[in-house]
Amino acid sequence: MEKREFLYDGKAKQLYATDDPNLVIMLYKDDASAYNGVKKSSIKNKGVLNNRISELIFMQLEKNGVRTHFVKRLDDSNQLCKKLDIIPLEFIVRNVVAGSLARRLDIEEGFVPANTIYEICYKNDELRDPFINETHAMAMNLVTREELDHITDLAKKINKLMIDMFDKVGITVVDFKMEFGRDSEGNILLADEISPDSARFWDSKTKNKLDKDRFRRDMGKVEEAYREVLERLSNND
Amino acid sequence: MEKREFLYDGKAKQLYATDDPNLVIMLYKDDASAYNGVKKSSIKNKGVLNNRISELIFMQLEKNGVRTHFVKRLDDSNQLCKKLDIIPLEFIVRNVVAGSLARRLDIEEGFVPANTIYEICYKNDELRDPFINETHAMAMNLVTREELDHITDLAKKINKLMIDMFDKVGITVVDFKMEFGRDSEGNILLADEISPDSARFWDSKTKNKLDKDRFRRDMGKVEEAYREVLERLSNND
Repeated sequence: MEKREFLYDGKAKQLYATDDPNLVIMLYKDDASAYNGVKKSSIKNKGVLNNRISELIFMQLEKNGVRTHFVKRLDDSNQLCKKLDIIPLEFIVRNVVAGSLARRLDIEEGFVPANTIYEICYKNDELRDPFINETHAMAMNLVTREELDHITDLAKKINKLMIDMFDKVGITVVDFKMEFGRDSEGNILLADEISPDSARFWDSKTKNKLDKDRFRRDMGKVEEAYREVLERLSNND
Repeated sequence: MEKREFLYDGKAKQLYATDDPNLVIMLYKDDASAYNGVKKSSIKNKGVLNNRISELIFMQLEKNGVRTHFVKRLDDSNQLCKKLDIIPLEFIVRNVVAGSLARRLDIEEGFVPANTIYEICYKNDELRDPFINETHAMAMNLVTREELDHITDLAKKINKLMIDMFDKVGITVVDFKMEFGRDSEGNILLADEISPDSARFWDSKTKNKLDKDRFRRDMGKVEEAYREVLERLSNND
């Protein structure tokens, strides 16, 4: 697989073309940003760690019948992925209330609601990724009713698999973000990454944060937390 | 029916007890506010006009099988209503994009989406009535899944009836807000008001605004616009 022209520079990843028009290479960077890019820095070894964490998660999801863009990890920083038409929506699943939601609705961080919370944000830097709902997404022609229903089913299934996977290694899946895309045949595949950058992981006993909140809130030991997640997931393999 | 103790002072209405524990009196005020109370003033005769407009709308909805809290209009400013346990949610229906939604999603005001847009806001002054979704509302124990499904059906039915009613008098129902409450038997009834205070009405031909946007945007002729809505609805009766 030959790495070809640079396609896209995201906040935490870069995308490159390959000699196969259906495949791209995703490079995980150490760059970290928070609060819509207001806070910027880098986290040592984050790229390597997230590349491996997301690999383990996506492989586990694939093993359980969830179709993803992940093909294989190429090296420390690079992943080979299927090229998708990315739907510009973030699908967020929340099992425990934390972060911006706790502030917006004045709910204590750590509250476990009776039902899972599902949210959609419109990926648009200029508008600061506004929180929307399904009817807005359809009104903007970003996604069809059928695609939304399918993604909702997928989100529920992925959440169950995530909870199972992390429960075995003593980690609570507080929340996580997903992106989806369409392949050339219109199939909906899980895209992007699932990592401590895009999820909240708490040690189930100590409630110790093992995710980007350590960076957002200047708590220190960010790299160590990401490494802890990787080691626990790896040892369970 | 005897008006008894004062119960509640809202931005545009007051609530009074009556000698019947199942009935309350709703008094329509001339007070007007916008942008979460940042802009405050009064609109001459607004109370009288909204009292009558909302009466006509609720009677038409009742005639078509929608259960509402409306019992009867008592005089120029007062309505007799069933006492409800109000669900602290605002249910917004949008047939045409306008106002805050146009700004938030950078969509041109006047855009008609292929699907109706439905929104929920959490009625909470301190939090500035944040936009939420069904899963948040359930997580906060404000409403059950069954109630939400029933309200969604009602919202669709009410929207159809509103569009029919206003189409006959040359007015486009751009958007409107609803509140619902539970009676003593747990039935879900439409509550509050539907008026140019809580809806956007545009003259179908000229697109002239016949609603509170004239107040929000200092366009003048606010009272005249409300009166125009009342006269058109009355003449069609």
